[in-house]
Amino acid sequence: MQKRISQYRDALNERTAAIFRDRKPNSLYDPVRYVASSGGKQLRPVLFLACCEAVGGDFRSLLDVAVALECVHNFTLVHDDIMDEDDLRRGRQTVHKKWNENTAILTGDALLVKAFELLSSVDEKKMPYMIGEFSSGILEICEGQVLDKDFEKREGVSVQEYYDMIAKKTGRLFSLSCQLGAYLGDGSAEQIKALEQYGNRIGFAFQIQDDILDLISRDDVLGKKIGSDLRGGKKTFLVSYARDHLHAEALQVFNDILALKSPAQSDFARFIQLCKKSGTFDAAEKEIQQALGAARRNLSLIKASVAKDILVALLEQIETRTF
Amino acid sequence: MQKRISQYRDALNERTAAIFRDRKPNSLYDPVRYVASSGGKQLRPVLFLACCEAVGGDFRSLLDVAVALECVHNFTLVHDDIMDEDDLRRGRQTVHKKWNENTAILTGDALLVKAFELLSSVDEKKMPYMIGEFSSGILEICEGQVLDKDFEKREGVSVQEYYDMIAKKTGRLFSLSCQLGAYLGDGSAEQIKALEQYGNRIGFAFQIQDDILDLISRDDVLGKKIGSDLRGGKKTFLVSYARDHLHAEALQVFNDILALKSPAQSDFARFIQLCKKSGTFDAAEKEIQQALGAARRNLSLIKASVAKDILVALLEQIETRTF
Repeated sequence: MQKRISQYRDALNERTAAIFRDRKPNSLYDPVRYVASSGGKQLRPVLFLACCEAVGGDFRSLLDVAVALECVHNFTLVHDDIMDEDDLRRGRQTVHKKWNENTAILTGDALLVKAFELLSSVDEKKMPYMIGEFSSGILEICEGQVLDKDFEKREGVSVQEYYDMIAKKTGRLFSLSCQLGAYLGDGSAEQIKALEQYGNRIGFAFQIQDDILDLISRDDVLGKKIGSDLRGGKKTFLVSYARDHLHAEALQVFNDILALKSPAQSDFARFIQLCKKSGTFDAAEKEIQQALGAARRNLSLIKASVAKDILVALLEQIETRTF
Repeated sequence: MQKRISQYRDALNERTAAIFRDRKPNSLYDPVRYVASSGGKQLRPVLFLACCEAVGGDFRSLLDVAVALECVHNFTLVHDDIMDEDDLRRGRQTVHKKWNENTAILTGDALLVKAFELLSSVDEKKMPYMIGEFSSGILEICEGQVLDKDFEKREGVSVQEYYDMIAKKTGRLFSLSCQLGAYLGDGSAEQIKALEQYGNRIGFAFQIQDDILDLISRDDVLGKKIGSDLRGGKKTFLVSYARDHLHAEALQVFNDILALKSPAQSDFARFIQLCKKSGTFDAAEKEIQQALGAARRNLSLIKASVAKDILVALLEQIETRTF
């Protein structure tokens, strides 16, 4: 199974390099190549390929769509990093930091457009569905990003509002990857639906994990500056849940920390303490477990295979991930 | 003929309004609607519809693709205005000025993605070609924008380099609009090619006009701040041509003006004078005339019709445009 994942990754890396090799002007494609070859987890294209194989499809013929999904993911990272003023990503400088903001805007634009170009290789009969789902999915991601930025300026964001936001911002690209993999692999309507839900739940668990890791990981492990959510005023699961479950006095302290422009190390410690006290980490853990359990049940329609093993193994990887 | 253009514009406005009506969140779709309803010239969708009709197609069934082309145009304007730090567009504040830069990045992203979503209505047989041309065309536009920004930092840009840049940055969306109109209207391969060239030449003439208007028009007529090219260090046709045709002493004065961070009114006057002296305006006029003449000849394969009349009339409009 690990061998098959390695096969996926090798094929993805090779195809990605070939797509962007020798493209000019370098002032656009150097940053594009920098991002595309930055060796992220490639979770979304791996999910796409595994879902395709899991329903009986041939992954080799669909590599371009897999690369397209990673291009979309990279597009969101490059533009989000500008908006969040993040300087570090995957252990390296972000594009707007290494080059400048204009270059980062155009790099994101080019990655997004390239993603669509890569779809034009698909069987024409499947194209209307694919283009429709792909584009409306990315539009949802943009909407989710807007909500995420809106929430930074709001004080109270309910857990439900948080869920709605991450379903768009994070969940949709995961669910889209799985859904399209199943669709292009000629899965049944039930399989496509089930794998879309599987992806949606992975995205949900992934984002709550992300919120926790941003607080308790280390820069060198995570590949980006930890604590940036708190500094940026992000309404993470932790913030939304804890505010609902802290009593008046503790809530005041919690809100005071949230209001700080530059929280110190001691503020982070106090923030973590209050999250613990309010049962927020336990609740987050429970939500993650439930989502991954439901995602696992979504795989019941899928016959045993190496690809299915990968889909199961990815659930465990997400549960125990440290970056 | 004017009646048919009005029909196009009414249909476009109605469809555009319907597409973006009631979409949430408002923090994304208010700026999107602001841009989409800003009443630009809608030259590209009008060209698309006229080319479609000119080869015998039915324009009413292809309104979504026409709106998609205007969405792409608006995407480029919103992102370019951030990069160029322009505050005024179509007589109104630019998005990054009226809202903020993050909102402008996301507004551009959403317009671009929406454009692709609008293409999913097209006949599946035509989709691979359309998605391929549409996406590779937009990629060229991004490459052109990168070159335009690169040139700002360079001293000498040849007229040929300028041509290559505007062919991508401006020409490609015009040629794409015409090419896709002819293709989706079931034109012959020769008609598609001829109308693509027609569009390319219109774009060429349009951009040189733009360079001139930026210098000699008025803010209230142009709907944006005049002189922004000179202030931004843009290597326009005027700059590239004049530098090649001024003698040593005058060239030094010219270069000194180009090097100014904030040119005064008198510098603009001197700049215009040097352009006149070097025959630059005459050369620009000649290039425009030649391009529009060639564009007119590209219409020889098109049978007489109201739509063809529109395509001819647009050539005259571009020649005499003031904004």
